[in-house]
Amino acid sequence: LVKLNPLKRMLIMELGVKTMEWRGGRLFILDQRLLPTEIRYLDCVSYKQVYDAIRSLAVRGAPAIGVAAGYGMALAAWEAIDKKAENFSKFLSQAGDYLVSSRPTAVNLSWAVQRINRLADQHKRLAPQKMSALILAEAEKIEQEDVAQCKKIGEWGESLLPSPCTVLTHCNAGSLATAGYGTALGVIYAAVLRGKRVQVFCDESRPLLQGSRLTAWELMQSGIPTTIICDDMAAQVMRDKGVDLVVVGADRIAGNGDFANKIGTYGLAALAHFHSIPFYVAAPTSTIDFSIDSGRGIPIEERDPAEVTEGMGKRTAPYGAQVYNPAFDITPAELVTSFITERGIHRPPFKTSLKDGLSG
Amino acid sequence: LVKLNPLKRMLIMELGVKTMEWRGGRLFILDQRLLPTEIRYLDCVSYKQVYDAIRSLAVRGAPAIGVAAGYGMALAAWEAIDKKAENFSKFLSQAGDYLVSSRPTAVNLSWAVQRINRLADQHKRLAPQKMSALILAEAEKIEQEDVAQCKKIGEWGESLLPSPCTVLTHCNAGSLATAGYGTALGVIYAAVLRGKRVQVFCDESRPLLQGSRLTAWELMQSGIPTTIICDDMAAQVMRDKGVDLVVVGADRIAGNGDFANKIGTYGLAALAHFHSIPFYVAAPTSTIDFSIDSGRGIPIEERDPAEVTEGMGKRTAPYGAQVYNPAFDITPAELVTSFITERGIHRPPFKTSLKDGLSG
Repeated sequence: LVKLNPLKRMLIMELGVKTMEWRGGRLFILDQRLLPTEIRYLDCVSYKQVYDAIRSLAVRGAPAIGVAAGYGMALAAWEAIDKKAENFSKFLSQAGDYLVSSRPTAVNLSWAVQRINRLADQHKRLAPQKMSALILAEAEKIEQEDVAQCKKIGEWGESLLPSPCTVLTHCNAGSLATAGYGTALGVIYAAVLRGKRVQVFCDESRPLLQGSRLTAWELMQSGIPTTIICDDMAAQVMRDKGVDLVVVGADRIAGNGDFANKIGTYGLAALAHFHSIPFYVAAPTSTIDFSIDSGRGIPIEERDPAEVTEGMGKRTAPYGAQVYNPAFDITPAELVTSFITERGIHRPPFKTSLKDGLSG
Repeated sequence: LVKLNPLKRMLIMELGVKTMEWRGGRLFILDQRLLPTEIRYLDCVSYKQVYDAIRSLAVRGAPAIGVAAGYGMALAAWEAIDKKAENFSKFLSQAGDYLVSSRPTAVNLSWAVQRINRLADQHKRLAPQKMSALILAEAEKIEQEDVAQCKKIGEWGESLLPSPCTVLTHCNAGSLATAGYGTALGVIYAAVLRGKRVQVFCDESRPLLQGSRLTAWELMQSGIPTTIICDDMAAQVMRDKGVDLVVVGADRIAGNGDFANKIGTYGLAALAHFHSIPFYVAAPTSTIDFSIDSGRGIPIEERDPAEVTEGMGKRTAPYGAQVYNPAFDITPAELVTSFITERGIHRPPFKTSLKDGLSG
């Protein structure tokens, strides 16, 4: 048996459980609702199944749902392959609208669908069969680019981490939220690969516990010391446990640097500010939406109250109780120390630096 | 059938489900672990059962566990009633130490036991039978005083609430945390009884969900509009839902105004400060511990990781995951707008105002 360097093992483990995988005309999506106690893949043969997987959070994380939507379009193309060119285009366009409607906040979803639509537009003279092959190639490209971007985000971001250091993160912005490697966790993986000593506190992230179910699981597989806390322990941990920095992902970044991310992010940013702890946001530039000036333009999804009242299958609130369950919140740009994208580290003022990054 | 004024109905409902009740030589303790889906009482005939009920959180809330400890001493006295005077005293003293060891943070526990011990000391010439009757009478007095103090806290505190107003609270500092009426929720009940329009957001309060299981249940029974949120939504609710003030209870208050309360309170206080929202702490003066100068002197209980990893009966974290699970945190006095006790409203500087309140 070959003895593996623990850092190599980390990468192999990471590849072992992929967020999704295209194989033989089907999209296999890891059902993240069952993690960490069960590893099961959904076998999607139609774009509607991909919609369901996104809507139900079997696959989640802004970059990952962008990649899934790309493959959803590829499935739609194969579904319509026997149609006439005109009907094929119509079917594809409707499938795209349907996929985009699965969740409102993450911009990567519409970004991926628009990218496929643009491609289809450019080649509208092609026969459906050839077009389908092109679309699949584009979806694969989106996936490969996502992994490559995450690695770049990691490389840029790791320079911000001292060694040893203690990092606090929220929700899951790791391999599971992307096609692989992760954004916020990508920064941590890159630092560890560089030999830095990193320990992580992860908020469990109610209501759906992506922190304890997914982030802790990912980090433990990579052998990175990780401690789960409830969300309401974050302030105490910042004060008493020597947190050096906070790093999170993003679902949509407005032109001015306001950004949407998993509910709880805004409070965490305010607490980091209160404790004078740097607060970093790691995301690919596809998450930046220059069409909106500020966070006020970002739609916030409200989800089923049952996620709160019977979170883990057991009723824990009175019947008839009123619940407020926004899936995201908006953090104002003033609370962000820097954004980390595949283009580099973007410092305030973000209105110019986010654009500069894009042009660079 | 008599038509009841909704405010009267509120009080009757409150009396309907009592936190604990002494009846026929037994202490019936409402098992709050089963709420809100099941109402069941533990039937305690020995002080060790009371210890178990406190330790396992069947009864919780600083004032309530003080009252329970008083009755626990009454049970110990009855258990030792056939012993000789000397052995009776020894048994009682050991029972007191045992009860105090059930939980470390709330000072009301040792306060109640010391009160019974002092009484026993003053009457040590009495026969065990007479002493037992005296001790029971003292335990009943502690209970009655607790309800009376909560009502006074409510009366003082309600003057701080505008009408209409939106209040945010954490954990449960209501009827269920006391012998009745509550501290933080007592303030809300008093305001509603005065005809004020109050709506409440309650943090669910992970890991054990005392907010959604207990506070929402109590407030709904009283017909007070209540919305449950996850703890990580509090910042967003403060900013976007017009929260006028935060009010919480306390488990121990140091001489300088630093105080221990359910984990999450410190973060909430920091977020209230960040949003310039008044932050009030409602507690009887028995919660003040003048023997310690600052929050550094308050011991913080760490509890079983399973509360976090299998909180709702279902495993939601990887096996072997490391967990940090402090039951309380310390909020520094600087973040408190005022303390509300049965003696009045105590404003900064607390070092003098908390004492003044006691002497007044």
